[in-house]
Order: sequence, then structure tokens, then C-alpha cells
Amino acid sequence: MENKKIEPRTLPGFMELLPKDQIRFNEIKEKIQRSYEKFGFLPLDTPVIEYSEVLLAKAGGETEKQIYRFNKGDTDLSLRFDLTVPLAKYVAEYYGNLSFPFKRYQIGKVYRGEKAQAGRFREFYQCDVDIIGDGSLNIMYDAEIPSIIYTTFRNLGFEDFTICINNRKILNGMFEALNLKEKAIDILRIIDKIEKIGKEAVIEEFKNLGLNDGQIKTIVDFIEISGTADEKIESLKNLGIDTDEFKLGVEELGTVIKLIRKYKVPEKNFKVDLSIARGLDYYTGTVYETFLDNYKNLGSVCSGGRYENLAEYYTDKKLPGVGISIGLSRFFYQLNKENIIKDENKSIAKVLVAPMDETLNEYALEVGTKLRDNDINTEVFLEDKKFKAKLKYADKLAIPYVVVIGEDEAKDNKVTLKNMISGEQETLKVEEATKKIKSE
Amino acid sequence: MENKKIEPRTLPGFMELLPKDQIRFNEIKEKIQRSYEKFGFLPLDTPVIEYSEVLLAKAGGETEKQIYRFNKGDTDLSLRFDLTVPLAKYVAEYYGNLSFPFKRYQIGKVYRGEKAQAGRFREFYQCDVDIIGDGSLNIMYDAEIPSIIYTTFRNLGFEDFTICINNRKILNGMFEALNLKEKAIDILRIIDKIEKIGKEAVIEEFKNLGLNDGQIKTIVDFIEISGTADEKIESLKNLGIDTDEFKLGVEELGTVIKLIRKYKVPEKNFKVDLSIARGLDYYTGTVYETFLDNYKNLGSVCSGGRYENLAEYYTDKKLPGVGISIGLSRFFYQLNKENIIKDENKSIAKVLVAPMDETLNEYALEVGTKLRDNDINTEVFLEDKKFKAKLKYADKLAIPYVVVIGEDEAKDNKVTLKNMISGEQETLKVEEATKKIKSE
Repeated sequence: MENKKIEPRTLPGFMELLPKDQIRFNEIKEKIQRSYEKFGFLPLDTPVIEYSEVLLAKAGGETEKQIYRFNKGDTDLSLRFDLTVPLAKYVAEYYGNLSFPFKRYQIGKVYRGEKAQAGRFREFYQCDVDIIGDGSLNIMYDAEIPSIIYTTFRNLGFEDFTICINNRKILNGMFEALNLKEKAIDILRIIDKIEKIGKEAVIEEFKNLGLNDGQIKTIVDFIEISGTADEKIESLKNLGIDTDEFKLGVEELGTVIKLIRKYKVPEKNFKVDLSIARGLDYYTGTVYETFLDNYKNLGSVCSGGRYENLAEYYTDKKLPGVGISIGLSRFFYQLNKENIIKDENKSIAKVLVAPMDETLNEYALEVGTKLRDNDINTEVFLEDKKFKAKLKYADKLAIPYVVVIGEDEAKDNKVTLKNMISGEQETLKVEEATKKIKSE
Repeated sequence: MENKKIEPRTLPGFMELLPKDQIRFNEIKEKIQRSYEKFGFLPLDTPVIEYSEVLLAKAGGETEKQIYRFNKGDTDLSLRFDLTVPLAKYVAEYYGNLSFPFKRYQIGKVYRGEKAQAGRFREFYQCDVDIIGDGSLNIMYDAEIPSIIYTTFRNLGFEDFTICINNRKILNGMFEALNLKEKAIDILRIIDKIEKIGKEAVIEEFKNLGLNDGQIKTIVDFIEISGTADEKIESLKNLGIDTDEFKLGVEELGTVIKLIRKYKVPEKNFKVDLSIARGLDYYTGTVYETFLDNYKNLGSVCSGGRYENLAEYYTDKKLPGVGISIGLSRFFYQLNKENIIKDENKSIAKVLVAPMDETLNEYALEVGTKLRDNDINTEVFLEDKKFKAKLKYADKLAIPYVVVIGEDEAKDNKVTLKNMISGEQETLKVEEATKKIKSE
């Protein structure tokens, strides 16, 4: 009976990779995970679906519009749109069972019904670490974050990247001094765009916001403070702004910069960037953005900051924290698009056992089992295809070794080991072949 | 300003673990992944959300009722309820880009809005492997599956488990011979329950279905065939049933059993079980269920089988396959509930660097960086707590080593390494401590 076929298709904005790309994606994901674990962060895996009331306790505006929200029976449900709100819920819910400072990482998919466009995903991986204090959290942890970013991007193979650091208290303290506190969020949003739109456009936006020339001059002078990290901190101290918040921010920034060096993060990999504000009104202290030096057009590839109170919508407990996030799906897309990662094929199997014809399959699968017992990822090709097709299969899957099984090999209890890259091959006992594969 | 708090809570039926359990869960998940990769399966990671039209092409009845289905804008969406339908979509969609036999694994969350009850989850992990042929697939792959199950459960630490194997063609061929073909699915559903409800209840259900005594006797005799795998296959041949399908089924089962031995799966870990039918009408050949010998009450912990046509709803291409699935969330729940896995605490950090007081934090974080540079997962405790509280923190997180930093240590550029299990401690150079930690 012929059925009408349904076109097999994937939703726009949902990343779905071919196996060779999935292998590379997973490799990056795993390296990020191992980097986070290097610092002792504990794994979490919260549900993708939550009560809307819980998930949207804080949300509003743009975020809320993007939520995948629906009813199942009488229950109003939403898909998580980040990993921070689930963390807040989690810490408030299991507070009594956790040890503080609570260091957790979570790597998982989140959902935002954004307008579909190239490089923007509706389902995407976030890779988060956060350190949550119970009541307070030492500023020193703010210096651990750049060390984590540094370790992670080095493990991913990068050398030329810059972690940009600022402190929101500096900005807020300055606005206070300028009597612009009530316009702070708007000003921060404008400052945040300076890289994108340039100084003149920023000044224009300040004017539109009703700032006078004196205020604009101070803010722009401030943004344009230059020099080394230490020189910038010195310049800030000399600006003559004396609100408590400003002074605390400068002090915190100084502490963080000093300690980053203790963490042995090289000077070339971090800097003070006073224009970094992070759009969100969520952050209250240190903020971070990370740029690949040769690909600044990608925007920040790892961002985050310090917040005063993680879970205020759920609990009276004060839970300050500091954390960062890597938007992995977008990052992976960009790395490919810009050819930043070489399109090097990687394989899961290290060996394909390929019998010359089907009568040798039984010996082939015995050999395959032996190789696996020696911890070598091994696939045995059992389909009745021409030998050439079996080699082509190994080649397509980038499997580096083919173990050829002919009649002589089966008779002599041997194998012919073929290196698919060099083309070399030699006939060996299985044990010898095993050793050779493992040694290379 | 005091806000009204929203109660932080997780949906019923959604597994959410404390860190110490999450570590164990992830360890099992990773062992399954590594086992699948040992056989060369390629990773896939398809979206959680799909077009309802695509996902529900085949679904009906109970399954469809359980689906999380909703609209976003004008688009009718559903959350995946297994990993097989997404695989079918994927293979049909990317057919031209794949190499066959296409061996893939996928480990991911799936969603079923089941009635919430202990041990039943609405969001749960499935861990699937499938081997898909293009047009045909060698029966020999059916024998690889028990080898995969064996390898996986051995890697998980189990020894006493039994892979039960049957072939649906045997059952279907018998029904044909008994003129019961049109009642085959109902009969299979009843046979499937024999372990649960017993022989008498099964006979009763057969009667209710309108079977005559002769038919019932043949079926029950058949189910009760006993002995070794080889004896059972011999008994089947001697039943005198001569439909082609029955004979083909017996032959396939014989081939699979013969080859399982070539794969070196021990006799104690597999058997022919003619009562295994798998409820689904999806399977057409070999079927598998796996039981822990000492915990049969858990039901099958790993099941699957051979199917004739993976993606018939999407493509005219004939894509036969064979695969299995482990329902990890339920399995993990059961392992804990039955105390099958010891509640052994595992840590992410191998070392906690604990300064005696806060003035030593800077030296502590330098030591931490050195340990990490030597590939040791290390957390530095930077909060201003009593030293005892820092030790308690290490203890709670089951971190096996504490590196104690006192004034003398900082002055002499040394550390005191404390083994948290034995209680032993000694003062060493950082390099010596590193070596010691790595050697143990």
C-alpha cells in the first residue's frame, strides 16, 4: 500500500548537524565541560519544561514574547529560555541540601522563539558556570572567572582572545555623581552599542536622551580612558568622582585585576574595558565579555558578571553570585562560517574491520571484538559490498585504520593493517596490530 | 521593597537531581556513550521540537495523547516522544549525505505527558543505538546488538544480566500456520504479559479472544519450549510448522545465536526466550529484552529489535534497521530505589585548596592554578569561613584531598596535603603534592 509521504524536514532556527559536524560540536562541548570541571564546578541538569509562573517570575518585555509557552491539561508550562532562571529556582528549592559557595555548571539547550535568521537559533546550547554565595560572596571569585574563561578557550585551541572586564558600580557611581541615576539603564544601553554604532552616534543618542554637554563630555571622556589596566584604574581614581559606589567599583576592579595575574592569566588575554556594560540590568559588579582578537565581528563569545541576588523572586535569602555563559550553538555556527575551525574530519571508530568478502565476516567480527576488548573503537563492516566500497566507507567516515581480512589472514589468524592516511599496510598478528594502533 | 515570593518548584514527573546524584547519573550516561562509541556509532543530536505533522506521521492512540503539542504563532509543534521518529526523519532528510550502513547513537531527553507516578517520568533520557541499512541490512548486525548490550552493561559494572532474544517471524509464521494471522497483534500483546500475569491468565485472555483449544495448546506449547538456546531452536524446527516466515525466523534466530558466540558474549548473559514479543507492531525480526538477573522486577532495562522499514512515512526508500534503547532516567531511578548502586559519593574536584585564613587566599589560588595546570580538578575555597567549615565543605562534596595552606606553607612555598579518607597529612612542595595526587 502506497502512503502519501510527509516531507521530512526540520524547523527553521533549529540546528541539526551531519555526523561529521556533530562529532566536532560534541568535542567542543566536552572540552568546555572538562574546563569547567577543572575548577570543581558541579553538574546540574534541570528540566527543559517548568511552570510558567516559576520560569517567568522575573521575565518581561522581549524575553516573554519569545517564550515557548503552552498548556498541558490545566498546567501553564514554558520551555526554559536560559539556564540562570532554572538555577535560581534550583538554589531556592534545594537550598538546605547545597554547600556554599555553590559552584555549578550546566550545559543544555534553551529555547527562544526569535525571528529566524542566519546564526540565530531558537534552540541552542548554553554552557554556564556560576558561583553562588550564601549571604555574601568574596570578590576574589570575580577573579576566578577570567581564569576559567582563559582555561576554557586555551583548551579549545585559542591563543588570541581578550577577556574585557569592567565593573557596573563604576558606571552607576558615575551616573550618581552626574545626577543621571534615573537615566542609568538607558545610558548603559547606549554605551553598550559604542562598538557597533561608533562614538558620534552614541553622542547623538545621549542628546536625544536629554543629556547636557557637560554630562556627555564626562561620560565620553570616561569611556575613552586608555592605557594599561593599571593606568585605567589610576585614571578612574583621578576623575574626581567621589560617590561611594564609584569608589567601591574602582576598588573591586583593582582587586580583580591584581588577582587575575595571580591566576596566571597572561596580560595579553585580559584588559579593562570601561565601555563594557552588558545590556542587562541584572549585573551589579564585575562584568565580562570575551572577544577573539582576529574575529571581533563575532561579538562577545563568552559573557557574564556579578549579580547581587540570584533568587529574589523565590526566596528572602540573599544569594549573590558571579558567572559566565558561552552560547555554544551560535559560537559553533560562527566558527564554521568564518572557517576558524578547520574542517578536519574526525571519526568515532578508530578501526574499520573490512572482510574481503562476506564469507570472512565471522572471522572479521571476532577480530573486531578483540580490538574492542583492547579499548579500540572498532566497527566491523558486515554488509555484502565490494571491498572497494568498504574502503570508501572508511574514507568517508575518516576512520584512520582499516583492518583488512582476506582468506590468508583468516587462515593464519592474522590481519592486514592499513593506515588510511599514509596508505601503508602490513600483515600482523591481531595483538601486534592492536599494539601498533594504540601506540600511534 | 518586599516582593511576594513565588514558590520555587519543579514539575511532577520531571527528574531533578542533587549534585551528588547528578554526578553518578552523568557517569552512567557517559559510560553508555563510550560503550556505544566503542562500536563506532556516530553521534546525533536532533531538535527536541519538531513539526507535529512530521513527528506524528505515524503516531496514534496512546502515544498521541501523551504528546506535548502546542502552537507557536501559526506553527503546530510537538516535543519528541522518542528518538526513533527523529531518526527516521533525519535519515530520510539527509539520506544523500549519509554513509550506509548508518550507525548512530543518540542520548537525549524525550517527553511524554504520562500520568505521574513513582518511577515514571514525563521528561526522561533515552540512550539509543540503531544500525540502518540502505535497501537491506545483513542479519549479522542482529548479532552485534547483544554484543553492544553486553559491553554496555559490563562497563556499567553489571555481571548478572540476561539478554533475551526472540524473532517475530517465528511468532508471525506460527500464527499464519494456525490461521490466526488477523489476531496476531492481539495475541502478541497477550504473550507479552505472561511474565506479569502468568500462564492461566494468558490462557483466559486467549479464550476471550476466541481462540479454540487446539490453537491455545499450540501457542502455549510453543511458549513453553525449554532448554538451551540450541535445544530451543531444535524444538522449533521439530514443531512441524512449515510456513516460510516461520522457517525464516527460526533460521535467523539460529544465525544470531551462533554469531553472538563469535562476539564472545558469555552463555550466561544471553538466552532464547520465545515469550518475548515486544508490544509494538513495529518490529519484524529479532527482538531483545534485557533483565538484571537479581532484579527481574525492574522489567527489561534495555530493549529493541529489527524493523523492516524505518522511514516509510517520509520516503519510498526501504531502510531496514536494528536497534536498542535504554530508558536511562527510569533505570537510574530504579537502581537507586533498589539500592543496586551504592550511594558512593563521587566528586568533581579532586582537591580543595583551603587557606587557614583569608590572608592566605592569594597564595592558595596560585597553588590552585598550579594544580590545574597539572590536570588536577581543583577548587580553591575563598570565602572567609573558619578552617573547620572548609574541611566540612570538602567532606560534604566528597573531595578526596585538601591542600592546607597555613602561614608556614605560604612562607616556605609548600603545602600540607591531607588525605580526607585516611586522614594522613604531610607537608610537601607543590610539585611533590601534585605527583602524589596524580599517582593515587
